[in-house]
Amino acid sequence: MRGHLIGVGVGPGDPDLLTLKAVKALQSADVVGYFAKAGNVSHARTVAAAHFPAGAVELPLLYPVTTEIHRHDNAYRSAIGAFYDASAAAVAEHLMAGRTVAVLSEGDPLFYGSYMHIHVRLAGRFQTQVIPGVTGMSGCWSEAGAPIAQGDDVLMVLPGTLDEAELARRLAEADAAVIMKVGRNLPKIRRALAAAGRLDRAVYVERGTMADCALVPLAERAEEHAPYFAIVLVPGWERAA
Amino acid sequence: MRGHLIGVGVGPGDPDLLTLKAVKALQSADVVGYFAKAGNVSHARTVAAAHFPAGAVELPLLYPVTTEIHRHDNAYRSAIGAFYDASAAAVAEHLMAGRTVAVLSEGDPLFYGSYMHIHVRLAGRFQTQVIPGVTGMSGCWSEAGAPIAQGDDVLMVLPGTLDEAELARRLAEADAAVIMKVGRNLPKIRRALAAAGRLDRAVYVERGTMADCALVPLAERAEEHAPYFAIVLVPGWERAA
Ligand SMILES: C[S@@+](CC[C@H](N)C(=O)[O-])C[C@H]1O[C@@H](n2cnc3c(N)ncnc32)[C@H](O)[C@@H]1O
Ligand SMILES: C[S@@+](CC[C@H](N)C(=O)[O-])C[C@H]1O[C@@H](n2cnc3c(N)ncnc32)[C@H](O)[C@@H]1O
Repeated sequence: MRGHLIGVGVGPGDPDLLTLKAVKALQSADVVGYFAKAGNVSHARTVAAAHFPAGAVELPLLYPVTTEIHRHDNAYRSAIGAFYDASAAAVAEHLMAGRTVAVLSEGDPLFYGSYMHIHVRLAGRFQTQVIPGVTGMSGCWSEAGAPIAQGDDVLMVLPGTLDEAELARRLAEADAAVIMKVGRNLPKIRRALAAAGRLDRAVYVERGTMADCALVPLAERAEEHAPYFAIVLVPGWERAA
Repeated sequence: MRGHLIGVGVGPGDPDLLTLKAVKALQSADVVGYFAKAGNVSHARTVAAAHFPAGAVELPLLYPVTTEIHRHDNAYRSAIGAFYDASAAAVAEHLMAGRTVAVLSEGDPLFYGSYMHIHVRLAGRFQTQVIPGVTGMSGCWSEAGAPIAQGDDVLMVLPGTLDEAELARRLAEADAAVIMKVGRNLPKIRRALAAAGRLDRAVYVERGTMADCALVPLAERAEEHAPYFAIVLVPGWERAA
């Protein structure tokens, strides 16, 4: 009897934004896996820990690299590929022993999340279920009370890691936009928004739905950099009716 | 004492995909509002009704028009504008009487949802909270087990109501795409995907996360039209590592 794998979205940060389905899945798990940077607590674990069953085995999957600066380097790519292979193997070992393994994911598992690296390696071999979660972006626009898109609006989700010219070109074509992975990319994102004529509509949201959430029009934010949990929203629906 | 307004996302369809926060908000509501087409049951009501408190007043908001074909007509626009005004007035009457009003929304309230028409009319006058929900698209890509976007992928959300040339142009530029509002737009969407060279990657998902969910590669689907709850996914991450 092989166990099964469940990718569990834990939502944007407020523990009450877990779904009933995520809670049930956690309660049924023998093993709970989660990614974290070595030396840091896992954010997803903090959000969901209240629902771990007594006696659950925890399986922390600790990133060997703590920065994404050189993410296009071959050395980075092979280190991270080996890490995902080893993480999938650790999960597979529990599955082979017949255990149900829940792997946590911030927000939604298949939306720019680390869980998908486990998923693509194991979904063909084991019974697998993905429990969708509220994304970080939904948490952020709800916190801002900002209708993000309506009617015929085209919404673009743009990683802040894109280069400045591409960001500006994409932003100029979008009715609405969400820029993820802000962090140290913020100065570049600000310039791209200005070039696209969209800086005046941009809203900066930090730690959306968490207790210490902060939000402000981006044009009014003085600091250069942003923490990991930060997003920039450009709400669409300019002809709101 | 004025009441407060809560926009409640009920998720993509599986009642277990409500969040804990949505359940608590419903349990605290004096009035529960929801949109529906006249003569139809409200889908959002069906998903969430198990959590309505005993004695809650229900406030159905019934669309006067049942088709979106002529949505650019002035007559349609003014009828629908008047309907949203009247709906907001009906909600406001309860709020003025000090009642807490939860307005349901399929998926996430501020993502192409009707709730936002109430929100923009009342959020300035009453204390308002928006509870994000799992979107229909997250439900669909989770059901398909399809990692939708990763790394530097640009994800575009495209309404199927756009014209064919624009859809094709946008699709050719997207690493990943989600096409909403499929319904009778399906033949056009299929042609646009083919023109953009993306038809082979497209997945069709109907009633994602619901008991009678169906999913199939779009190229293999024979029928011309689709029901209201249908989406087309073009997963990104073609260089999955
Ligand atoms: C690797 S992606 C993971 C996205 C996640 N799977 C989701 O569904 O939102 C991480 C990025 O998501 C954004 N993010 C996620 N949650 C957030 C929150 N609560 N507040 C602000 N940004 C958030 C940030 O831009 C962050 O850099
Ligand atoms: C008016 S939009 C509302 C979107 C909603 N607020 C959300 O967050 O998903 C309705 C469209 O969402 C898509 N949709 C929503 N839920 C879905 C589901 N469970 N399965 C397939 N499509 C869905 C369909 O394309 C439908 O035409």
